[in-house]
Amino acid sequence: MEGLRRRLAQVNDLRAAASLLSWEQETMMPPEAARVRGLQLSTLAGLAHELFTDARTGELLAEARPTGQDEEAIVRVARRDHGKATKLPTAFVEEKTRAQNEAHHAWLEARQHSDFQTFAPHLRTMVDLVRREADLLGFDDHPYDALLDAYEPGMRATQVRAVFSDLRDRTLPLVRRITAAGDAADYSVLTRPFPHEAQKAFAWDIAGRAFGLRSDFARQDESAHPFQSNFSRSDLRITTRVQDYWPTCLFGTWHETGHAMYERGVSERWERTPVSRGASLGVHESQSRMFENLLGRSLPFWERYFPALQQAAPEVTAGLDARTLYLAVNRVQPSAIRVEADEVTYNFHTLLRFELELALLEGTLDVADLPEAWNAKMQDYLGVTPPDDAQGVLQDIHWSAGLIGYFPTYTLGNLLSVQLLEAAQRDPAVAEGVAQAEYGPLLAWLTEHVHQYGRSLTPGELTERATGRPLSADPYVAYLHAKYEDIYGLK
Amino acid sequence: MEGLRRRLAQVNDLRAAASLLSWEQETMMPPEAARVRGLQLSTLAGLAHELFTDARTGELLAEARPTGQDEEAIVRVARRDHGKATKLPTAFVEEKTRAQNEAHHAWLEARQHSDFQTFAPHLRTMVDLVRREADLLGFDDHPYDALLDAYEPGMRATQVRAVFSDLRDRTLPLVRRITAAGDAADYSVLTRPFPHEAQKAFAWDIAGRAFGLRSDFARQDESAHPFQSNFSRSDLRITTRVQDYWPTCLFGTWHETGHAMYERGVSERWERTPVSRGASLGVHESQSRMFENLLGRSLPFWERYFPALQQAAPEVTAGLDARTLYLAVNRVQPSAIRVEADEVTYNFHTLLRFELELALLEGTLDVADLPEAWNAKMQDYLGVTPPDDAQGVLQDIHWSAGLIGYFPTYTLGNLLSVQLLEAAQRDPAVAEGVAQAEYGPLLAWLTEHVHQYGRSLTPGELTERATGRPLSADPYVAYLHAKYEDIYGLK
Repeated sequence: MEGLRRRLAQVNDLRAAASLLSWEQETMMPPEAARVRGLQLSTLAGLAHELFTDARTGELLAEARPTGQDEEAIVRVARRDHGKATKLPTAFVEEKTRAQNEAHHAWLEARQHSDFQTFAPHLRTMVDLVRREADLLGFDDHPYDALLDAYEPGMRATQVRAVFSDLRDRTLPLVRRITAAGDAADYSVLTRPFPHEAQKAFAWDIAGRAFGLRSDFARQDESAHPFQSNFSRSDLRITTRVQDYWPTCLFGTWHETGHAMYERGVSERWERTPVSRGASLGVHESQSRMFENLLGRSLPFWERYFPALQQAAPEVTAGLDARTLYLAVNRVQPSAIRVEADEVTYNFHTLLRFELELALLEGTLDVADLPEAWNAKMQDYLGVTPPDDAQGVLQDIHWSAGLIGYFPTYTLGNLLSVQLLEAAQRDPAVAEGVAQAEYGPLLAWLTEHVHQYGRSLTPGELTERATGRPLSADPYVAYLHAKYEDIYGLK
Repeated sequence: MEGLRRRLAQVNDLRAAASLLSWEQETMMPPEAARVRGLQLSTLAGLAHELFTDARTGELLAEARPTGQDEEAIVRVARRDHGKATKLPTAFVEEKTRAQNEAHHAWLEARQHSDFQTFAPHLRTMVDLVRREADLLGFDDHPYDALLDAYEPGMRATQVRAVFSDLRDRTLPLVRRITAAGDAADYSVLTRPFPHEAQKAFAWDIAGRAFGLRSDFARQDESAHPFQSNFSRSDLRITTRVQDYWPTCLFGTWHETGHAMYERGVSERWERTPVSRGASLGVHESQSRMFENLLGRSLPFWERYFPALQQAAPEVTAGLDARTLYLAVNRVQPSAIRVEADEVTYNFHTLLRFELELALLEGTLDVADLPEAWNAKMQDYLGVTPPDDAQGVLQDIHWSAGLIGYFPTYTLGNLLSVQLLEAAQRDPAVAEGVAQAEYGPLLAWLTEHVHQYGRSLTPGELTERATGRPLSADPYVAYLHAKYEDIYGLK
């Protein structure tokens, strides 16, 4: 095991270094450094891949005799990763990397001019590539399974389809009722003057006081697109974006705080091994959405932190109380743009993408017909038609990067967030804490039942162990109804 | 050459990543991240060393058929580095690394309690190790040559001894005359109120306007000890330390600016090769000291930038003019501490260390007798006795890190700085620019005659080509006399 551990630590450290270079590129780097930084990142990724897939690593994995559960998990996860990594020939990986680069540039261009035709041939190539990738990786039922597995290990398209249909059927009527109800608050408070530095400072202060993210082991910086990154469980980074519309900074910060606290909670016994990360994108998203929405957009949260907001932003809070603020930050408004969507409409954005991805992979939808199909579904689900393709089918970066099979994880995370919070609140101390916006007991529960395991459990195993049942839409549907029927007076 | 270039680029990128992780550690990193960051740095250094010294790199170097001067330089420098790197057995490198770690901790402890005995056994080990290192590397005349060569390629101890003796004999009388002359200015202006943020902003503003360091390709941050670091010629970092004694920040920033602009000037044709750095520590120091002292502490500089200082720090400049400020920032004061020393006394600090290093290596001085020898020389040269060993023999980190042979480069840099500036000013445009604190022509001259070559010329070749003669103490001695006889009214 010693040789294997050393090898895995080297791969881990190379990847951590690459993450740090990427984080630095988005937050600190002088602009002219970009070209060489790209080459450096490519060297680190290449060396990490070579080291992880070379014959010696294969031998070390084959010869490994793990003792105890911890080492067994390390070997299991490493063998799984190694198996997948070695199934893709270098020539294929290089072809995909080139195609991604070209598709990314074409997408930027296409979005700028809202010209889908510029992007279409690249997307067609990308769909072909991921189909071939699915064949190389192998699957039982559906090629989508092979792709999804990279983001949500063990999850199948049929499961996603079933849960999503259930969710759609049971929340679409709620969307219609809310839309018909009209405004629940004065939403102009969301753009009242809140100086940018004060927004950042308030968001970070609360991230520490409410959620436990402290500068001893974490830092907050600005970037064009918010993200979480980390180089060890004691070296966490979140970034935020600051706009006059101040919810972007506050809720964005707490979203990334959820991701960071997950990584913080992974047990030190997985340090520098492939187990030392969150179990999947979906489980990760369950933590970020819990902090951002289930806690950060709750009434107890604002009852507790309204005085702090009054201090930080007196112009925002003038004439308001905690409940009026709570109503304002929970506005439901169907829109064409996924990243601006609220808790109620968000999942229709991912559902739409999931359905289109399936159709593209199955060959029942041609890339040329994609914009029309997109707009029809938007109209169908949310009653919205994007003003142009830039704000429609071209809005996301994912497909240009070959990330097909990724979108469902956002909604899987939403569903799991409520299912986990419900399970956690079976513990009275957690429930009482949540009711008072005292999250210490909840954090302890999450660390014990979710965070500590890292990748040693699959998302499915983790969900069943932590909540006592498989992932279901029930808790989320119930949560939305209870919360928004109250806010919009629909009871 | 293609395979060799690729291999050298990988080694370069690994080292650049390690530099970035180190820079980040000193400027940004949350404190709890330190332990794992150390492991990550050690992985990167180890992988870079393995890749550079493995059999395949040896073959690529042996088979390389360079075409043209540029490729010849790459192969020459890479072969030189490879030869040195492969002369040290891994077991020796590991032994030295362990000894360095232990010596560093012992030094920190010893300095804190001003207790040389705690450090003495570690220093003895370190002297033994570098003696063995010199034997492994090989030398003709003196073991010191093998060590010096790591910092100042091609330089010999006999040359250093000759130049330093000359310098000592011709500047010691000047120190005595200045010390006898008394104050030349009101030095309390050096601690007048200058808010820390304003110090940093002013220093950075002038670094851009006067010396060309811009945020397009560089950034400035704070750290406990100032340094320059870079990850490509378009990715330069300087750090600064801010104190109430504001010259620390200003001149420290311009010192690091000199280092950064050297790296900026290295030709892009050496990108990601071992040639893409400054020629030596001495040549590097010639640039930093030129910007800090020859330009930054000159009268024309302050005549030009005094109005900017008035704007940035009205409390500092109240009742002063450019010349009174110039007199104040050129205070000569013998002191026990090297890093606080002025232009006139600085070189006695390095001379003393050089002489003691030679004696330790030759075995004519025992480690146990070092503090006494140190204090005797301090008294002899500067008329100062350190109040304790913490402010005497224990003040520098270098010996604990095994950096024996390093100190002379500070003075070699001082000497070269004046010799280069003198040569540059044979060009009337440069001379006129310097007289008006317009450094564009000087920077162009330095880029053409010094910076662009990177490591493709040795320091000796570079000095002869750029100035027309070997390194000499003459220009520096003449500079000190002219400047300080004026300041102290000694003519």
